[in-house]
Amino acid sequence: MAKDMFLYWGSGSPPCWRVMIALEEKHLQGYQHEMLSFEKQEHKSKEVLEINPRGQLPSFKHGNIILNESYGACMFLENQFKSQGTVLIPEGAGEQALVYQRMFENLTLQQKMADVIYYTWRIPEAERHESALKRHKEALATEFQLWEEYFQKMDAGSYVSGKNFTMADVMVFPQIAFAFRIGLSQEKYPKLTDYYNLLKDRPSVQASWPPHWKENPQGMDTLKEL
Amino acid sequence: MAKDMFLYWGSGSPPCWRVMIALEEKHLQGYQHEMLSFEKQEHKSKEVLEINPRGQLPSFKHGNIILNESYGACMFLENQFKSQGTVLIPEGAGEQALVYQRMFENLTLQQKMADVIYYTWRIPEAERHESALKRHKEALATEFQLWEEYFQKMDAGSYVSGKNFTMADVMVFPQIAFAFRIGLSQEKYPKLTDYYNLLKDRPSVQASWPPHWKENPQGMDTLKEL
Repeated sequence: MAKDMFLYWGSGSPPCWRVMIALEEKHLQGYQHEMLSFEKQEHKSKEVLEINPRGQLPSFKHGNIILNESYGACMFLENQFKSQGTVLIPEGAGEQALVYQRMFENLTLQQKMADVIYYTWRIPEAERHESALKRHKEALATEFQLWEEYFQKMDAGSYVSGKNFTMADVMVFPQIAFAFRIGLSQEKYPKLTDYYNLLKDRPSVQASWPPHWKENPQGMDTLKEL
Repeated sequence: MAKDMFLYWGSGSPPCWRVMIALEEKHLQGYQHEMLSFEKQEHKSKEVLEINPRGQLPSFKHGNIILNESYGACMFLENQFKSQGTVLIPEGAGEQALVYQRMFENLTLQQKMADVIYYTWRIPEAERHESALKRHKEALATEFQLWEEYFQKMDAGSYVSGKNFTMADVMVFPQIAFAFRIGLSQEKYPKLTDYYNLLKDRPSVQASWPPHWKENPQGMDTLKEL
């Protein structure tokens, strides 16, 4: 089954990493894949644009079926391989609701991280303002604080949505790992740090760890002051 | 069952509308609800903040279960009431994949609409640039063009993901309806217009149509030039 799958991905992209963790958790090792370089603009190449008009990664194919949205690909894999590997969307109403709640809240975390991390890359120089970047940083600090509080209210050693690893972790962990890599303070966010340590050596996470992060474990310190 | 449900919502908010359409499609009429005013900042009231620390609408409760993310609430309703009302996530792999692909792409449409519509509301005056707003408008026009092309490639009379109404429509329709209300050109986007006309009188859509849009069918002309 996995041999019919093909993934274009980029190293260090949380959306790509999500899909790779989901593939591991659903025991779909052996899928075909090609790592592309964002720096070399390979995500805008003809081969990607043919299956993804947005020219973004991940781009995923299962036979003739195309899925280019990371959330979509992960939900599809869970649904098509329900009884295989880890159950990522639990059946029980209460547990399921919290999985959905946290996995979609993660999109806000992702957006607020992007507002800070890609500020100079996205905003032309003539339109940049220190006040804007400061506001984005404050909003992101508030966001991390909210997630820190979510973990404070849970039992020690909890995953994002409780005692089991779920789709919420598939979505949230790459975001948190990225944040620590680029300088988020372990002292200021001790519960997020515990969560990071809980998951960093999980087999699905290790098997898909961004290769260029392995070579250079420490990234820039963009989030240092947060 | 629906009597145990409670929804805080705001008139004209696509995320709120999604949940209301999903409730209708899953035959959960009779849920309790309260319409709150964004203008009066009622989404930041104590009663909302108690169940939603982000102070946003929709806020949804099913018994003691809380779901404040519109995508999460809709997915939860589909999963918990699978055999009731409309099947919103089809089982077949190809059909299901396209539903997921389009429903998550809709988040990009939503983001690009927000960048234009809320520009002056979100960006302090001293940080505003005509060049930035122009860029946001161009990106949004490209986005609408992409969706127009999606419909061009499908049979006439298709829903977003094919011949059946699905979760993709629950997500996308309120966004498209909002765009036309605030001036999107029917001439420039004829396929999106057909889609709007296909769905505007659907019972679930009519039953949940934003009340202040009924009073004043024409909004501002923010997207007129797009």
